[in-house]
Amino acid sequence: MKPSGLISLTTDFGGGGGVMRGVIWGIAPHAQVADLTHTIEPQNFRMAAWYLSRQAFYYPEGSVHVAVVDPGVGTSRRPLAVQAGPQFFVGPDNGLFTPFYEMAEENGWPLKVVHLDKSEYWLPKVSVVFHGRDIFSPVAAHLARGVPIEDLGTPVADPVRVPFPRPQRQEGELRGEVILLYRHLGNIITNIDRQHLNGIPPESVTVQLGATRINRLSRTFGEHQPGDLIALFGSNDELMISVVNDSAIARLNPSIGDEVVLRF
Amino acid sequence: MKPSGLISLTTDFGGGGGVMRGVIWGIAPHAQVADLTHTIEPQNFRMAAWYLSRQAFYYPEGSVHVAVVDPGVGTSRRPLAVQAGPQFFVGPDNGLFTPFYEMAEENGWPLKVVHLDKSEYWLPKVSVVFHGRDIFSPVAAHLARGVPIEDLGTPVADPVRVPFPRPQRQEGELRGEVILLYRHLGNIITNIDRQHLNGIPPESVTVQLGATRINRLSRTFGEHQPGDLIALFGSNDELMISVVNDSAIARLNPSIGDEVVLRF
Amino acid sequence: MKPSGLISLTTDFGGGGGVMRGVIWGIAPHAQVADLTHTIEPQNFRMAAWYLSRQAFYYPEGSVHVAVVDPGVGTSRRPLAVQAGPQFFVGPDNGLFTPFYEMAEENGWPLKVVHLDKSEYWLPKVSVVFHGRDIFSPVAAHLARGVPIEDLGTPVADPVRVPFPRPQRQEGELRGEVILLYRHLGNIITNIDRQHLNGIPPESVTVQLGATRINRLSRTFGEHQPGDLIALFGSNDELMISVVNDSAIARLNPSIGDEVVLRF
Repeated sequence: MKPSGLISLTTDFGGGGGVMRGVIWGIAPHAQVADLTHTIEPQNFRMAAWYLSRQAFYYPEGSVHVAVVDPGVGTSRRPLAVQAGPQFFVGPDNGLFTPFYEMAEENGWPLKVVHLDKSEYWLPKVSVVFHGRDIFSPVAAHLARGVPIEDLGTPVADPVRVPFPRPQRQEGELRGEVILLYRHLGNIITNIDRQHLNGIPPESVTVQLGATRINRLSRTFGEHQPGDLIALFGSNDELMISVVNDSAIARLNPSIGDEVVLRF
Repeated sequence: MKPSGLISLTTDFGGGGGVMRGVIWGIAPHAQVADLTHTIEPQNFRMAAWYLSRQAFYYPEGSVHVAVVDPGVGTSRRPLAVQAGPQFFVGPDNGLFTPFYEMAEENGWPLKVVHLDKSEYWLPKVSVVFHGRDIFSPVAAHLARGVPIEDLGTPVADPVRVPFPRPQRQEGELRGEVILLYRHLGNIITNIDRQHLNGIPPESVTVQLGATRINRLSRTFGEHQPGDLIALFGSNDELMISVVNDSAIARLNPSIGDEVVLRF
Repeated sequence: MKPSGLISLTTDFGGGGGVMRGVIWGIAPHAQVADLTHTIEPQNFRMAAWYLSRQAFYYPEGSVHVAVVDPGVGTSRRPLAVQAGPQFFVGPDNGLFTPFYEMAEENGWPLKVVHLDKSEYWLPKVSVVFHGRDIFSPVAAHLARGVPIEDLGTPVADPVRVPFPRPQRQEGELRGEVILLYRHLGNIITNIDRQHLNGIPPESVTVQLGATRINRLSRTFGEHQPGDLIALFGSNDELMISVVNDSAIARLNPSIGDEVVLRF
């Protein structure tokens, strides 16, 4: 696969990541580097997995995505590079890349997972607390320049997997859960996707979260009044609970893992 | 007009916008993409209009500015591309581009407004909740590559206008209002500009906001002590109320629309 | 020194900085511009100095770093360009560049400091409240294009210095202080570096901050349980106090300047 020369960054730094660009440009001066997001909640690698899995495949084939949400840095957790179909990923072996292993299997894509154990592709000095700068960024730059992923380390057969729970279909209902709170816009994200409805008409569906019931699925925000509590499919077909022009998180105060039940 | 190959992004996403870069680079691999800001308050399209109108014209001629503050996405509100003088804009027809229509008229610039109804310039699959990714980003990329704006859709004669209020001049006073709260730095922004003073000496002007009176206009922050409440013209000649090294918003707790009176 | 064509931005704007990219690209269309960080606390130029001094030297030789934390803008404080060894810096003469003067002296690097008083390298119109846009950005763009630093202004022999305090070594102890609160990740940063320990074994060291005592230095986060309070060396060998997967700032509520004592 030909490299696109594009690198994206996903971190929990809350802003910045600028030092990683310096490292990348020292190795790949013409790489174009994008911030995917730096507002992952600290240490929440599953939030990073969710974001990355819904955004990376909008990039041209051969792009490299670096993810630094890494509470185990400096322990025996392995640094990884992954090729899943048309995209490369670089980051820690803590479950963050689980969606890409699943996608590769579901789609029959090539999947390569490599333990980054070749220090000639790192910075000369490696901090035990910041592999994002000292290992992941230089490795991403080498991938963007066309170094084959196989050269960067040793194949891994058993990467860590931490799958998202899947919703359960029963007679007349679908039981899922809250998997993400997108605080800036106030949306509550569930593990239920449009495809799980499988032809059931949205106007016949009710959504229950705790004591709150929403009586049908909406198509879009603008068909409602500001302040209305609604349920709708988001930009990646994920079911979300929202308040028009306000925060459903502030209104309902949910937690990750809370049950969400669709009845139809 | 020759495209500059530069694209800026203005959103209320609170960070990120990275997926839009992926879409843009898939169409225009050499475009340079800048974050203008992602910290617009959710749904506050007037704040976006204000920012964009004061920043876009610092870009080279032929740049493209994408604005995604879009509570009406998926309804009948139109997606637009606009050329106002030397710059292009892409986003929703919700009033966000009002300042550019006014500038074009005041300056005698060419003004073109196009309803984006040619789906061959979009992503193949369009979400009803994220036109920023699926329509605005690909259209911006096509503009940056030199596709004429006329090719992207049908001319619009009546784009939505939501003008900012203008200050009223009376005998010995000028009545304006608060139009923006810039929370990070704590500044209160008004709709009064330096040109409205029209030669009146700044040291003879008092500024009143609610019960608070400030006795003259200052030139800059550094001539005062930390903690002083001052009024001065900001980086685009807009009158603002500030506390040196602290937040005037926290001190005075104003609301958008509060009256601000200058007496001289 | 050959310019790398790379420019980084460090500000207290809380996001954005996009107008500066427009100005830069108007002068240096092919410059690559990175956000180092925009989350410096308002007016905290020492926080900016700390960040910049630990990140800039990861950039390729000949890069330009713009810093806009500038409470004295518009007063007699001078705008500066600095070359310290392999890197260029542009910003206000308020002490922000002190670490680079010290590094140049300690390492025997060439050091050039120039008062930016040649308006032909600025934007035509200069606001008294935003030199970041009107002076620093255009000057950075000219440096990135290869204009010699000497051409940009008049040499300065006495730039403002505001050094960080240095820790004091006494019999069996080292007395330092809190110099930075990194709020997003919750880490308390001190002025004590790994080199100050000079061979003392980390497991024999206790760390005291106020009434809190930590009984040894740790190597990394992952060897502890979530919620544990630890002391360890950060990514630039600075001693920091942290809570695993949580905020030490929230737990201990320290202030800048609080004494930190290491005993061994």
